[in-house]
Amino acid sequence: MFHPVDLIIRKRNGDALSAGDIHALIDAYTHGKVPDYQMSAFLMATFLNGLSSEEAAALTESMLHSGIVLDLSDIPGLKVDKHSTGGVGDKISLILAPIVAACGVPVPMISGRGLGHSGGTLDKLESIPGFSVNLDIPTYREQLRSLGIVMIGQTDEIAPADRKMYALRDVTGTVECIPLIASSIMSKKLAEGIDGLVLDVKCGKGAFMRTMEDAEKLAKTLMDISVAFGKSVVAWITAMDQPLGYAVGNWLEMEESIRCLQGEHIEDLMELTYTLAGEMIFLGKVADSPEEGRYLAEKAVSSGAAFEKFVQLVDIQGGDVHVVKNPDSMPSATMQETIHAPEAGYVYSVDSLSIGKAAVQLGAGRRTKEDTIDPTAGIILHRKEGDYVHPGQPIATLYTNQHVHIPGVAADIKNAFAFSKEKPEARPLLMNRYATIL
Amino acid sequence: MFHPVDLIIRKRNGDALSAGDIHALIDAYTHGKVPDYQMSAFLMATFLNGLSSEEAAALTESMLHSGIVLDLSDIPGLKVDKHSTGGVGDKISLILAPIVAACGVPVPMISGRGLGHSGGTLDKLESIPGFSVNLDIPTYREQLRSLGIVMIGQTDEIAPADRKMYALRDVTGTVECIPLIASSIMSKKLAEGIDGLVLDVKCGKGAFMRTMEDAEKLAKTLMDISVAFGKSVVAWITAMDQPLGYAVGNWLEMEESIRCLQGEHIEDLMELTYTLAGEMIFLGKVADSPEEGRYLAEKAVSSGAAFEKFVQLVDIQGGDVHVVKNPDSMPSATMQETIHAPEAGYVYSVDSLSIGKAAVQLGAGRRTKEDTIDPTAGIILHRKEGDYVHPGQPIATLYTNQHVHIPGVAADIKNAFAFSKEKPEARPLLMNRYATIL
Repeated sequence: MFHPVDLIIRKRNGDALSAGDIHALIDAYTHGKVPDYQMSAFLMATFLNGLSSEEAAALTESMLHSGIVLDLSDIPGLKVDKHSTGGVGDKISLILAPIVAACGVPVPMISGRGLGHSGGTLDKLESIPGFSVNLDIPTYREQLRSLGIVMIGQTDEIAPADRKMYALRDVTGTVECIPLIASSIMSKKLAEGIDGLVLDVKCGKGAFMRTMEDAEKLAKTLMDISVAFGKSVVAWITAMDQPLGYAVGNWLEMEESIRCLQGEHIEDLMELTYTLAGEMIFLGKVADSPEEGRYLAEKAVSSGAAFEKFVQLVDIQGGDVHVVKNPDSMPSATMQETIHAPEAGYVYSVDSLSIGKAAVQLGAGRRTKEDTIDPTAGIILHRKEGDYVHPGQPIATLYTNQHVHIPGVAADIKNAFAFSKEKPEARPLLMNRYATIL
Repeated sequence: MFHPVDLIIRKRNGDALSAGDIHALIDAYTHGKVPDYQMSAFLMATFLNGLSSEEAAALTESMLHSGIVLDLSDIPGLKVDKHSTGGVGDKISLILAPIVAACGVPVPMISGRGLGHSGGTLDKLESIPGFSVNLDIPTYREQLRSLGIVMIGQTDEIAPADRKMYALRDVTGTVECIPLIASSIMSKKLAEGIDGLVLDVKCGKGAFMRTMEDAEKLAKTLMDISVAFGKSVVAWITAMDQPLGYAVGNWLEMEESIRCLQGEHIEDLMELTYTLAGEMIFLGKVADSPEEGRYLAEKAVSSGAAFEKFVQLVDIQGGDVHVVKNPDSMPSATMQETIHAPEAGYVYSVDSLSIGKAAVQLGAGRRTKEDTIDPTAGIILHRKEGDYVHPGQPIATLYTNQHVHIPGVAADIKNAFAFSKEKPEARPLLMNRYATIL
């Protein structure tokens, strides 16, 4: 007989649970037979005592099979997705998915919303007027077959146990736990019907994993689960100290992504985009190596094929194609304020956590679940790490429709910049790569 | 502003909480403003990360003041109570309270019910037909004034936060946690209006604290809280390897207690009773030393004053005085089975945990909260540690009205006895004493 208290006590005591134990617990919880108060005690015991890789795989499997698991094998090609653990200015998915699809690798992408100081792909897509991220499963499947790309949000049918557990973790102090994070991510990704996965595990001030040690642990946990489910996986640990690119905020990031898809080369953004796109094209077996994949990705941008794929994606999901082709036609936020350099020198660092939090204050993110997002709010950086600046030159501009926040937020943004007399050594963006190709 | 998640996270991270934090949390929980699922996450974090003595005192205070705190200062004399952490055959309160009251120290005793394998004073009192443990507070106060002794159960008005938390701990794997146990005990004891407290912290196989280290930790935590509230306290750590006395089960223990009050000397039982009674009489300042207190206690038994006090107690709380004066008139359990020694030798040990569990099986305790107790069920031991036994001689008799359990339970009881060729060295019953007299 199944006694939830016994499982809680065993995890509390640091003992390992069997796959059957975990399955019984998650199944009972999903069906309302284990109350929240028992699950939260279990989650706290898990937070403090951890999960083995076998336990994390069993948890993933239980959450995965709490809902539908898509079988996309009737659609030609190896389906590949990318997941980022969340950063500031991280609009990579917007640029990368059309590139990879343009190269012939089907991309079935189910994304999330902004969380705390980090933005979310869904919120950025919805900054295009009319764009719908709520497709039903038959439409999702049909669009992947016809267009080779689909970008939606998690539906009720996908990993409902994860959705229920995630909401509980959020209010019980059990979010920042590597095996729980990994199981949550992987249960949703595996439900998509992918053949391979590229992971961008962020590390640094603006990431959920602050240290290389934690980022490596998360990458390893994610990869272990992926491999346990027979999916090839590549993980890159990448820096999240300063924001990626210059734009932070939903439409501002979309506009920057459009320019990149049209060929503008923003160094950090496109370096990361091409690297991850190359890995995806390689996992999709359209290229024989990540390097060849990268070459194909660059060609898809320069030929215009990637932008064309993006326009088709926007069109089919109901978005305003005119705005995408003419980003200047989108009205800006009503209030803008430019922040100027207080001194001469090199930008030593731009604290992405502070920038991300400032963007939330301006309306680009949610402070409570009920908040609505202002798509035009955000921050444009004019200088990044290593740039020289004279006193009084602009370093950032904030965009908002909420007047009351401007003075405080302007000060926060200014404080996010640190300056030095000497040019700082460039820090690597792409740090470590791990791969298991099955 | 009060954010319960922040407090959960701080305790999860091993940080200390302020008294204000703990008070806000407990107050909000008691009033239904913090849901069970947040409290259970907090309790598990507390279980695994502990509480400082300041935190335990603050938790006790919050639970204490969640209900009424009795002020008995208008009743003459120093009020003293005893608390035992629970054992098998532990009927000490039944014998000790009348003795101490007969010596002139008022005893306001609020007791608990049986928990797991350990018995509860309330269940034993209720084995006397008619005895009511549910008195209202004015009656409790009046009886203490007139008779110098009152024995009741926890009312809804006393420490409701503890009652709510305890029920939650029971179903979330957070029971066996020293600071939570200590705060729970002390919040109830302090609400009684006592001036001093004697603690009997059990240690051994049949106790909740198995090791001397844990027992000392619990004793220290209980004493720290007592002293923080300005109450003199004496703690004895006592052995709970074999049951106390010969009887286990509610009426069986009551009958043994009556015989002791009438002057029968059962070695371990009366040694512990007189020691603890001596401490209480000393704390009540009727004696100048625990030794003098013990002398008075022995005199109260031999003079018949203690038994007379007990008869008055039974009478005033509605119990059948005839049964108490003539225990043989109480009908026995319908089924009895005697277990015989399988070999010759000395009884090396009698496992109190197994005996306690066997008694529960026979009907003397509850397996679920809904179970009712059979007052006549239980076990009488015929031999204890160090006794010599010939093959086939009786070692125990079980009493029950539930036929189905007899064969299995008889085997368990037999297995609870271990034998040796050599006479085992006597193990001390009274182990360590700690006292803080204010």
